[in-house]
Amino acid sequence: MHVFLPDGKQLDLPEHATALDAAQAIGPRLAQDALAATANGVLTDLMTPLPEGAQISLITKKNPGEAQSIFRHSLVHVLSQAVNEFYAAKGYPVGSVKRGVGPSIENGFYQDFDLPEPLKEEDLPALEGVMRDIIGRNLDFVRTEVSKAEALRVFGHDPYKVELIGELPDDEPITFYTQGDYVDLCRGPHFPRTGALPQAFKLTSTSGAYWRGSEKNPILQRVYGVAFASQKELDAYLERLEEAKKRDHRKLGRELELFTIDPLVGKGLPLWLPNGTTLREELTRFLREQQFQRGYQGVITPNIGNLELYKTSGHYQNYSESNFSPITVDDEQYMLKPMNCPHHVRIYASKPRSYRDLPVRLAEFGTVYRYEQSGELNGLTRVRGFTQDDAHIFCRPDQLKKEFLDVLDLTVLVLSTFGMNDVRFRVGTRDPEGSKYVGSDENWTAAEDQIIQAVEEVGLPYSIEPGDAAFYGPKLDFVVRDVIGREWQLGTIQVDYNLPERFDITYTGEDGADHRPVMIHRAPFGSLERFVGILIEHYGGDFPLWLAPRQIAIIPIADRHNDYAEELRAELHAAGLRAEVDDSSNRMNAKVRSAELSKIPVMLIVGDKEQEDRAVSVRERTPEGHKERKAVALSDLKTELLERYNARQ
Amino acid sequence: MHVFLPDGKQLDLPEHATALDAAQAIGPRLAQDALAATANGVLTDLMTPLPEGAQISLITKKNPGEAQSIFRHSLVHVLSQAVNEFYAAKGYPVGSVKRGVGPSIENGFYQDFDLPEPLKEEDLPALEGVMRDIIGRNLDFVRTEVSKAEALRVFGHDPYKVELIGELPDDEPITFYTQGDYVDLCRGPHFPRTGALPQAFKLTSTSGAYWRGSEKNPILQRVYGVAFASQKELDAYLERLEEAKKRDHRKLGRELELFTIDPLVGKGLPLWLPNGTTLREELTRFLREQQFQRGYQGVITPNIGNLELYKTSGHYQNYSESNFSPITVDDEQYMLKPMNCPHHVRIYASKPRSYRDLPVRLAEFGTVYRYEQSGELNGLTRVRGFTQDDAHIFCRPDQLKKEFLDVLDLTVLVLSTFGMNDVRFRVGTRDPEGSKYVGSDENWTAAEDQIIQAVEEVGLPYSIEPGDAAFYGPKLDFVVRDVIGREWQLGTIQVDYNLPERFDITYTGEDGADHRPVMIHRAPFGSLERFVGILIEHYGGDFPLWLAPRQIAIIPIADRHNDYAEELRAELHAAGLRAEVDDSSNRMNAKVRSAELSKIPVMLIVGDKEQEDRAVSVRERTPEGHKERKAVALSDLKTELLERYNARQ
Repeated sequence: MHVFLPDGKQLDLPEHATALDAAQAIGPRLAQDALAATANGVLTDLMTPLPEGAQISLITKKNPGEAQSIFRHSLVHVLSQAVNEFYAAKGYPVGSVKRGVGPSIENGFYQDFDLPEPLKEEDLPALEGVMRDIIGRNLDFVRTEVSKAEALRVFGHDPYKVELIGELPDDEPITFYTQGDYVDLCRGPHFPRTGALPQAFKLTSTSGAYWRGSEKNPILQRVYGVAFASQKELDAYLERLEEAKKRDHRKLGRELELFTIDPLVGKGLPLWLPNGTTLREELTRFLREQQFQRGYQGVITPNIGNLELYKTSGHYQNYSESNFSPITVDDEQYMLKPMNCPHHVRIYASKPRSYRDLPVRLAEFGTVYRYEQSGELNGLTRVRGFTQDDAHIFCRPDQLKKEFLDVLDLTVLVLSTFGMNDVRFRVGTRDPEGSKYVGSDENWTAAEDQIIQAVEEVGLPYSIEPGDAAFYGPKLDFVVRDVIGREWQLGTIQVDYNLPERFDITYTGEDGADHRPVMIHRAPFGSLERFVGILIEHYGGDFPLWLAPRQIAIIPIADRHNDYAEELRAELHAAGLRAEVDDSSNRMNAKVRSAELSKIPVMLIVGDKEQEDRAVSVRERTPEGHKERKAVALSDLKTELLERYNARQ
Repeated sequence: MHVFLPDGKQLDLPEHATALDAAQAIGPRLAQDALAATANGVLTDLMTPLPEGAQISLITKKNPGEAQSIFRHSLVHVLSQAVNEFYAAKGYPVGSVKRGVGPSIENGFYQDFDLPEPLKEEDLPALEGVMRDIIGRNLDFVRTEVSKAEALRVFGHDPYKVELIGELPDDEPITFYTQGDYVDLCRGPHFPRTGALPQAFKLTSTSGAYWRGSEKNPILQRVYGVAFASQKELDAYLERLEEAKKRDHRKLGRELELFTIDPLVGKGLPLWLPNGTTLREELTRFLREQQFQRGYQGVITPNIGNLELYKTSGHYQNYSESNFSPITVDDEQYMLKPMNCPHHVRIYASKPRSYRDLPVRLAEFGTVYRYEQSGELNGLTRVRGFTQDDAHIFCRPDQLKKEFLDVLDLTVLVLSTFGMNDVRFRVGTRDPEGSKYVGSDENWTAAEDQIIQAVEEVGLPYSIEPGDAAFYGPKLDFVVRDVIGREWQLGTIQVDYNLPERFDITYTGEDGADHRPVMIHRAPFGSLERFVGILIEHYGGDFPLWLAPRQIAIIPIADRHNDYAEELRAELHAAGLRAEVDDSSNRMNAKVRSAELSKIPVMLIVGDKEQEDRAVSVRERTPEGHKERKAVALSDLKTELLERYNARQ
């Protein structure tokens, strides 16, 4: 057989040669340094036969990061071996540890276990020690192929393995990977030996997980780990994790009194407290102004609708798992609205439209309700009721590109207002093989072309994801990286040929005939709940002045300055700024600390001198710490703060 | 027997004397002029025996308006006689017209009939003619007392009368009133003769009405009439009616594209079209600003809640007829929220509160859902889902009066912004006999006193309505008279001792102990739906600049002025004003007419001269017609319009 090297050279090898054989054919040094390989772009290991004629490339210890998913998976096997030894040391017989699945995941890995007694969090360091010991033993990962009968013989004592093996085809070989006395049913790939695995890993936590994800099955104990090619990467990751914990929007949401979830009101139904409401209303006001300037028209529709509406739209049939149960009213049935689109389509249909009236851009901060399982609910980012910054644009096919471009432009502007400049797009197009799509080929091709042209014009990075389109049209998702490096999928823009068809909406063309408009669905924030949840974490609660629910803390140095402080407050408040006086009996430093903890961006400190001059001392929070200015005249300050506020800074 | 006259004089009369006897005793001229009387302040007629020792006063043809309800009722009898004659003339036998009830009502009367063939609207003038003829015959109304047996004998052929008679006590005389050959079972009172009845009446319409209001009973045909003491009053009333028709918010709502109700979305669930949404958002923004200045804090709560919440609040048990059916979620039950209060109470309870933190004023434009019967639904004024401009103030008992006064002040300010200056208050206090009330006597007395003191301080007219309090506390309703003289009950302020108790909410007093706050519920608009419905009728669609959904129509005289017009539009739009260009191919006059019909308050007409000078000709709608100004510089105009807009004019 032969394979091809990255430089294009052909390498002749014996039948069933592996990547290790290829490395050895090139040179013994490479064979010693090799950790894994790619064959035709797919990761493989040194022990697996290469496909005939493959384009191969070797991964060595110089760049182990390229084989991250492999060493994470190999660490799962090391973990399992360590757990075996850990329970054997406690006196449990061989075979008393049973295993569910154990994949590599983003940043690390996990393994599910059925254990004779549960692991405790405090066992994890000891377990990590056993793992490092196994790595030190430098055991080879040995790949063997066995028959299904042989596999069942070896794992007959383990019901989970038996279940998995039973599902494999009868006539294909099954692979085992063995290191030392540990053997596992596994497709691989793996590193060649435990000694080649990085030491930069850490077991982080355990949790319960149902076998195969079903509540009907036994619950297993899942052990999570993180692993990187280098200690530096691991440290950076753990630091980000720590930072993410500090920024957790549920924690900050409580501390800054932004929202609360009250079981008596309902799970997944946040109550927006005054501070959170202020923040949310600033967002709403901002987007509403942008939309006014761009020719959107506001509409308001009810939170329920007749079931017939959702049957016409298809939501009732197609999204039944997220629908709430119907409400009976007289002889009709109603449902909490899962989406605003059908309501907006009916508004479009409420009067005749001509080609001259298009595009019609209907916008609503519409509150919708979708069922989520209790276990999936999470703070503001996964809820059962949320408000979308929704809009539907009804346009002629020839207006699609321009409208799409305007939505892109709006969304990029919106995100950049929050310093979210690291944005990429995912363009979801049709699966070339798929057949589930509605609308003509001609429309699809035109729409996909126009979206890609629009994205090209914006000039931000994008990827095309064939098969990611909705059945009713192509779409574009915004992926934003936040300050601590996490990616969030935010707004979406979707092109829709389906609802105009289902509701039979039309416009009168220049030719006097009826034509079908195209719909664009768009939501730059996505939902206010989720966006605020992400904003809290993005800013770590340190909101810029315009968004800060509490903008200005006025701190009188002594009680005799309280009246002047109150006068300042009233003046700033009358100008529309959110100012408050700390007239507690605390000392000045304690008041400053308290304002710091509340993350109030501007503090105005007033004493005798300030009072006399009708001025203030300003102390502002900055990313670096804080900035102080003495003797700023009140009128200058007010102008400055209002300018910043109105400029949304 | 004897009675007393208005001047205090005693009048001695024979036993069973009537008001006519009294008039005759005073003088024959008075007896001739008398139409009716009051006895102890209650209207009576000249034919009914007076109570012994009554204080009486005679009503003569000089002031027939004082006996409005009597002559309206007498006209019902004349109408019934006319209907008998009308069907007799068509050849139907005597007794084929059967009658349900026929009372006098505000502005007129109605009578329900079971007819051998239905009356048509176009029959009404002919019927009116017969009535005038009967009046011309000057028939006496004769009162007779009969036994129940006699009554059943006379009306045995009429199942409706038989049913009514059956319910009367066996041992009291039953009265008949007879004019000419027409006899009716009736308690009276009536005018002495048909000739004394005013001719200022009109039959206005017919409709179906169930016998005794129940859908299980046969449907009767109801004939409505209006009647006044003078033609002048009738004309004024008909003019108001005509005006009210023109102002009907359902008609204007459609014509001005403010809202629509779509059966596919749901009955009683308005869809706010762009123009209506703009208007509603102006109202919201206005009130939100006022509330910010008065120290309210916004909150946002979901449109559904766990049934347990409403059981705790008592809404589930006490308002079950207006609750929608529950929604099952996992093993819990939820309900569309009928009121925002329980949610706000839970927000209050979400953290400890000290006496220093009070008052806490939580405001929400909260959308609630209450079941109403289909037949009760009406445009925006009677709906199934609506948004309240709701707020709940949690305060100490010693803060109640000040808070109440501030709410009063806010509400009066809000209403006067819409030119609603004809306001009166109804203060609902406890029924001195009632026992349904929660809360201590001491609290009630203090709260009622404080409300009345507050109302006194405001200095607007008020009435005290004992027994009109809610069971949980006293309340105050705002009654506003609109420009065409109709009264509307708008906002309400209620004091509540009940919910704080049921939810066991407290604050820590200066004494360190737990105390119970008092709650104030308030909504100056009431609901945005109802308020906008009333505003549409109040303004007849001619909204002031700040509220007008379409503020400025720019009218280019010829096509060559379109670019300049568009430039103007963009500049005004960028300043936040709602401007549009009429670039249709219509002639200028047609464009002006079209803007007039759309009730756009400001038109800017641009031709060569204006374009050259960067100016406009301004044509504004005024209550008197319109006002024109030539050659107004654009920058001056923009400043002026923005000033008016910001001043909410």
